[in-house]
Amino acid sequence: MTTRVAPELIDLLGEEAVLSEPPAIYGHDATEHEGLEGKPDLVVVPRDTEQVRAAVKWCYANDVPIVPRGGGSGFSGGAVPVRGGVVISLERMTRVRSFDPGLWRMEVEAGLRTADVRRLARENGLFYPVDPGAAEQSHIGGNIATNAGGPHAFKYGVTGHWVTGLEAVVPPGEIVSVGGPVRKDVAGYDLRGLLIGSEGTLGIVTAAWLRLIPAPEAALPVVAAYPGIAEGCAAIEAVLASGVLPAAVEYLDENAVAASRGAFPEQLPSDARFVVIAEADGSAEEAARVAGELREAMADGAVLVHEPSVRGDVEALWRWRDGVSIAVAAVRGGKMSEDIAVPLDRLRDAIQGTLDIAGRHGLDACSWGHAGDGNLHSTFMIDSRNDDEVRRAHDAVSELFELAAELGGTISGEHGMGWVKRGRLGLQWSDRAVELHREIKRMFDPKGLMNPGKKE
Amino acid sequence: MTTRVAPELIDLLGEEAVLSEPPAIYGHDATEHEGLEGKPDLVVVPRDTEQVRAAVKWCYANDVPIVPRGGGSGFSGGAVPVRGGVVISLERMTRVRSFDPGLWRMEVEAGLRTADVRRLARENGLFYPVDPGAAEQSHIGGNIATNAGGPHAFKYGVTGHWVTGLEAVVPPGEIVSVGGPVRKDVAGYDLRGLLIGSEGTLGIVTAAWLRLIPAPEAALPVVAAYPGIAEGCAAIEAVLASGVLPAAVEYLDENAVAASRGAFPEQLPSDARFVVIAEADGSAEEAARVAGELREAMADGAVLVHEPSVRGDVEALWRWRDGVSIAVAAVRGGKMSEDIAVPLDRLRDAIQGTLDIAGRHGLDACSWGHAGDGNLHSTFMIDSRNDDEVRRAHDAVSELFELAAELGGTISGEHGMGWVKRGRLGLQWSDRAVELHREIKRMFDPKGLMNPGKKE
Repeated sequence: MTTRVAPELIDLLGEEAVLSEPPAIYGHDATEHEGLEGKPDLVVVPRDTEQVRAAVKWCYANDVPIVPRGGGSGFSGGAVPVRGGVVISLERMTRVRSFDPGLWRMEVEAGLRTADVRRLARENGLFYPVDPGAAEQSHIGGNIATNAGGPHAFKYGVTGHWVTGLEAVVPPGEIVSVGGPVRKDVAGYDLRGLLIGSEGTLGIVTAAWLRLIPAPEAALPVVAAYPGIAEGCAAIEAVLASGVLPAAVEYLDENAVAASRGAFPEQLPSDARFVVIAEADGSAEEAARVAGELREAMADGAVLVHEPSVRGDVEALWRWRDGVSIAVAAVRGGKMSEDIAVPLDRLRDAIQGTLDIAGRHGLDACSWGHAGDGNLHSTFMIDSRNDDEVRRAHDAVSELFELAAELGGTISGEHGMGWVKRGRLGLQWSDRAVELHREIKRMFDPKGLMNPGKKE
Repeated sequence: MTTRVAPELIDLLGEEAVLSEPPAIYGHDATEHEGLEGKPDLVVVPRDTEQVRAAVKWCYANDVPIVPRGGGSGFSGGAVPVRGGVVISLERMTRVRSFDPGLWRMEVEAGLRTADVRRLARENGLFYPVDPGAAEQSHIGGNIATNAGGPHAFKYGVTGHWVTGLEAVVPPGEIVSVGGPVRKDVAGYDLRGLLIGSEGTLGIVTAAWLRLIPAPEAALPVVAAYPGIAEGCAAIEAVLASGVLPAAVEYLDENAVAASRGAFPEQLPSDARFVVIAEADGSAEEAARVAGELREAMADGAVLVHEPSVRGDVEALWRWRDGVSIAVAAVRGGKMSEDIAVPLDRLRDAIQGTLDIAGRHGLDACSWGHAGDGNLHSTFMIDSRNDDEVRRAHDAVSELFELAAELGGTISGEHGMGWVKRGRLGLQWSDRAVELHREIKRMFDPKGLMNPGKKE
């Protein structure tokens, strides 16, 4: 295919927009450590929406599969060209098209990094609250394509809650705009919502209008460690019963604590086998008040309570929290990690269930994640060069998805289905709902060329 | 049709679930004052989801149009059986299926009134923040079907933001459940979002899982009156620039103030020709702090600042605000009122534009609404028995929708398209987006029997 595609796309988009010999990075995302890889036939790096449209139009007319790519930080293989095709990487589309601090809004192109969106807001007294784990790497377009979450989704909601307008290129190669700087719009069916979280299988998000709010003056985490799951989960429920709204409620179970123990900013007692982080935010007084309530709610049964209040200490804590994924991967050199979510009252069952499944397959496991949202990163630690271990981990992951559905939850709280969870929607949705899911796909993409094999 | 439909549905659902001679109320919603009316062939009042399913299945198999009905408080004719058919009224489905205060969630049936949802939450220290104008009349199912807003959507978002799960009956008569008590779910395409705001044209919402938050301890409105639009809109922008997040930012223009002046809890100075209401909420200290910031931001140019702080006074203020719609209708006996929304920096143009359009058609007009969301209730006051005036008001409304689109806004910020705005989506969406909208309709409802003529 490459022989024909490259010259025609170069002709259409110019030489600088086409990488005929793309670096290996375009064959991977964060599932690389699970061994998932693809090979793009070529990579297109458009500089504007019109080039995206032209590329999609040509590919669609010529039956060439299209794999959209953001920052490549996804955990479900959504950006991996598993079956080849043309990767369209939004990395050059990083313009801030408009920014009105006084009106709490900005319009940005899809390739802008999440951290840059957050920084630009902050520098102007505003707050873009969504903080998925890899904010320095992920693109806002990828966040939208997966409807990314993160710790602060507990109070502030996931990405989609902050998107008032979308520009996208849909098959067979047309630019569609829905919404904009207007904050409320119920005229048409929710096309905006449909494109958000569609993982590039319905269209390619090229730009978005984001809603912002005034930045909270202070953010005060309260960290408590417990001897076990029971005490930790009791603390999480006590936080909810305390009558305040924390910005985040996170947890780490025993093996996640063990893997990251050395990097914890304080000395963790040896009987600290479950950690809960809640965060209070708002004005300085409000954050202090809420932190006080959280401390009180979390004290019962705790073997340690840690409350960083200086900015550097707060950042150190979150750096530790963000580093858990890498620390866990380092234990055995690899991991298979999924992002199930369950109703909050089943969190304990899901945490214990992850360990039970691992036990049945002779694997080490742990979990951590967004406790307040019932969103676990259930993880099997493996040596990814050991084929037998990899096979057992795949079996364990299958059981994990079944467990999530049994507990009334979902196979994906925030990473999306991508390639990794394909074929599993039936675990949680009825036949008719799955059929509607498939009809939506056919409606947008009758040829099945948009990120084929993903989210199906 | 009635002759055949009635006996068969009675046979299927029992006599008490079928009203063969329905009261006139089922032919109307809040568009009654605009002269819109319909006549149902009969009305079904199911007692559970299974009865809804059976009714939809029978109607669908027999090519009988279905018009779902909530509380009948809609402003766009969505519940009016304009072309007859079977009205399915959810009024008997009022069960709270589950309520877990400690987990901040409830599952309720569609016929429960919005105010009851709010009360039940409040009585348990929790908060369901969405407060559409007719909360004592509207059903939660109708709120979901229109994705209803209200004053506090500014801080808290519209209905959809609080719905984590939906149960709905879709053609040809199947129950579909998406989501549930789980707070995050990105596995499938956003069917939940697609049904929310679909105005009964894709399916009938029968129950929902709602997310709640701890109730704010205090809510402190700050009301300021200004001599005109310019000063009022400057105050609204000053509120946004003040660095705090108000729970609501409302406004009334000169004629809306005039119509409701007598009912205002305080004496309004004669030069009060524009009123802004902002509300601070949170803990008592936090609300007081934010109210102080709002007061400071709003003082400039104000001819009156009013700050009710006792609960009864706060309630009196909001009763006055809720009564504006009726007060305006009373001026000439009728009104034609639409809910356009525009980007916040075009609010002033939209307020003035409403008056200019009215002037060109020899009509009186006013507007009020959710200033912070750029959401106007632009209203032409008419004698609805005067055919010529009604005709001119229809022309004025057409121009209003064009104005909304020109200003980068939407024809509906919160009421939906219903029957009143049918055929107008092309004003704000491209051909391809409108085509996708229609394909979604065909996909769910190939026979076009679900609330026919609405939202199209």
